[in-house]
Amino acid sequence: MVIEKIKQTIERENLIENKDKILVALSGGPDSVCLLHALKKLETYYNIKIYAAHLNHKIRGIEAQKDALYAAKLCDELDVPFFVKAIDVPAYAKEKKMTLEEAARKLRYDMLFEVKNRIGAKKIAVAHNLDDQAETVIMRLIRGTGITGLKGMDYKRGDGVIRPLMDISKANIVSYCDENKLNPRIDYTNLETEYTRNKIRLKLLPFIEQEFSANIKDTISRMANILREDSDYLEAEAQRIFEEQVLENTNEIIKLDIEELKSTHSSLVKRLIRMAIKTLAGTLEGIDNVHIEDILALIKNSKNQLKLNLPKGLMIYKTTDGLIFTFEEISFENVNYNYILKPDGYIQIDEIGMRIESKIMSKERCIALPTGQYTKAFDYDKIKGDLIVRSRLDGDRMKPMGLGGTKKLKDIFIDLKIPREKRNSIAVLSDDKGILWLMGHKISEDYKIDENTKRVIRITCKTL
Amino acid sequence: MVIEKIKQTIERENLIENKDKILVALSGGPDSVCLLHALKKLETYYNIKIYAAHLNHKIRGIEAQKDALYAAKLCDELDVPFFVKAIDVPAYAKEKKMTLEEAARKLRYDMLFEVKNRIGAKKIAVAHNLDDQAETVIMRLIRGTGITGLKGMDYKRGDGVIRPLMDISKANIVSYCDENKLNPRIDYTNLETEYTRNKIRLKLLPFIEQEFSANIKDTISRMANILREDSDYLEAEAQRIFEEQVLENTNEIIKLDIEELKSTHSSLVKRLIRMAIKTLAGTLEGIDNVHIEDILALIKNSKNQLKLNLPKGLMIYKTTDGLIFTFEEISFENVNYNYILKPDGYIQIDEIGMRIESKIMSKERCIALPTGQYTKAFDYDKIKGDLIVRSRLDGDRMKPMGLGGTKKLKDIFIDLKIPREKRNSIAVLSDDKGILWLMGHKISEDYKIDENTKRVIRITCKTL
Repeated sequence: MVIEKIKQTIERENLIENKDKILVALSGGPDSVCLLHALKKLETYYNIKIYAAHLNHKIRGIEAQKDALYAAKLCDELDVPFFVKAIDVPAYAKEKKMTLEEAARKLRYDMLFEVKNRIGAKKIAVAHNLDDQAETVIMRLIRGTGITGLKGMDYKRGDGVIRPLMDISKANIVSYCDENKLNPRIDYTNLETEYTRNKIRLKLLPFIEQEFSANIKDTISRMANILREDSDYLEAEAQRIFEEQVLENTNEIIKLDIEELKSTHSSLVKRLIRMAIKTLAGTLEGIDNVHIEDILALIKNSKNQLKLNLPKGLMIYKTTDGLIFTFEEISFENVNYNYILKPDGYIQIDEIGMRIESKIMSKERCIALPTGQYTKAFDYDKIKGDLIVRSRLDGDRMKPMGLGGTKKLKDIFIDLKIPREKRNSIAVLSDDKGILWLMGHKISEDYKIDENTKRVIRITCKTL
Repeated sequence: MVIEKIKQTIERENLIENKDKILVALSGGPDSVCLLHALKKLETYYNIKIYAAHLNHKIRGIEAQKDALYAAKLCDELDVPFFVKAIDVPAYAKEKKMTLEEAARKLRYDMLFEVKNRIGAKKIAVAHNLDDQAETVIMRLIRGTGITGLKGMDYKRGDGVIRPLMDISKANIVSYCDENKLNPRIDYTNLETEYTRNKIRLKLLPFIEQEFSANIKDTISRMANILREDSDYLEAEAQRIFEEQVLENTNEIIKLDIEELKSTHSSLVKRLIRMAIKTLAGTLEGIDNVHIEDILALIKNSKNQLKLNLPKGLMIYKTTDGLIFTFEEISFENVNYNYILKPDGYIQIDEIGMRIESKIMSKERCIALPTGQYTKAFDYDKIKGDLIVRSRLDGDRMKPMGLGGTKKLKDIFIDLKIPREKRNSIAVLSDDKGILWLMGHKISEDYKIDENTKRVIRITCKTL
């Protein structure tokens, strides 16, 4: 019955192809022993070739040695080519500051892929079972997750790892070992078992089985399979759309089309964001749901030229045409803006993060107030038409105080050593006749307060 | 804080629009009392108008009477227009053979929609809270579900029902009632509370909170919200594709494009199948995952002209161009097939659900065996070329036993009163010279066993 069920899994999930070489990860515990024995039985049926590899992890020296001997003997009896490697995992863990569990896991997979490559195998079979799957799903559920977590472990990974036992319960595995007199080793170290997982196995699942549903593990595994199908579709769809909407994709920068993002369903947009980060940073570590929500809010924000800082130096920029993911600072070189500044009014320019206020007052009152780099006063009656706060334009000229003539804005920027990419973020205050103020830098002769001035407009700009 | 959180929910989920009339379902218990009080407080802020309605269900007569009085008094104090209706729910439940819970639920919603229509309200606000949501998700998880179950209750339903309290815990609701001295009624009947839900509330959730995560209810609610987004996208996408791929959509029949289905992701195909059934039958009751899997297998089957029977008389037909959902029998009028029948061999004709076997034997042995309507014997040495089992062709003729001449198959069908649409499902056995057997009906003179016969071919057809 175990063999029949494994065949069903293999065929439903397309785990095996004709002529596959399959390397079984053999610890010597009941799961991997059952896996090796069952796959070996199916060797002729599927026209495959079975190999086994064992890591002697040197945790509890004598027991680890016995595990390795058992594994060697079993492979000899089953006529399975056997690879073994001994590594001092406790020493490695100490050196690399990893937990024993992390170190053993890393070294075991390193060893498996090394052997896989050496023998030219297509697949590595690992022995996760139905109980492991149910525990994984519940653990993720308790910690908080979405469909990607709830779908559980995959039957087949992109790197060739397959899990043929994932529909078989632990109880059936133990019976299988008994029936076939395999005498597997007891896993003293139980390296895989985290604290929470252990509590789920020993307390929560038995509680649910007794109080609610004896089949809870099967129910969860079925749910995971249904969700995996939905998840696969969503990921494939997101991948297709990513390729459609990506405007730039280099080592330094990923730029997605902002207009397309706005008309894409948020279920997919979240996946596109994760894909962009994963592609750029190589990992999603440190990125939580709250960061994804922040980026969604950034996309929806009606303003452009916005920036968001994420963990590990990742920056997200929103420009007029794109959502940019990068680790490099970028300037909003081409920011353009043009606002009317009402007398006794204010405007907020999100593009450059400035707030500008104006106040009309008598000359007497004005003289009593201080001015400075970001506060200037002008003769209000010399102004023609609306006051405009805007970004520079090609050909802009002004008559800077004290120069006695006009000068191109471009030359003023050069004299001030302001780099090209920062020039648009310096606001220009103008009226119908010309420029009053290159804000923060130069004021014009033409609007200065003199003995005839009656009303004054006092203008202040502040960083938001 | 409760009010702030309700506002967040209302705004994030777009529950309320300017000028909405909102009818609150008021039982008198803490949840609905908190809901009414909070929404009333937000009446001016959102520019809405609040109403309340109460069903006196007459379960535990005195207590139900007190609930109704309390509700009336509260609405009077809050200056909320109040509607009340008294129905003998126990009597109704008995008459309609429903549980008290089902009957109360049905009558309460009937009453709410009646009042909603009368006052021209846009929304009905019901008081499900965060605890209810977590319980619902866990209950569905234990019973077995997919994303549609795990997304929990919706904040907003298509019919105008909204759930503004769904992010507020029961504990916060109780505190809110205390702080505002609302003295809600204790819900003695607790009509909503099923047995399993009660155990989840009283045993499972406290167990998880203590052993694993004090925030489990929030965690589950957040998960439900993430999944709802994915589910919404998948449903919308399936709806779009349904409209694209549906070839016929009447009261009697829904026909989907089979070739399109084959190239659509199974995650969506499952949704398309559910949509077709829901559209035709009005409900998905009685349809389990196993039925959906059967239909998926039908689609993948390389044969056409297949039929599947589902519960409640629903039938699924697979024809050359479509997948048909219907409650009416349909005939595969244009089924065409043509198979070689090997001597001592068999063929299975899925198109008409028949298996046909042939056996070569000596005349002596054959004579000792019985024949019948579906088992006939022919002189094997009179056969020229391959034996063919096929559907009728225009112009087919045969020489029926005893007639002494040839006759058109068409005329034989007319004599036998076989309707046109069933004629192709009657197989014809022929060789290079002509027709041996109109299977189940007539055999030919030309192949009969006589004194010169040496070898006999005995042919049997069986329904699959």
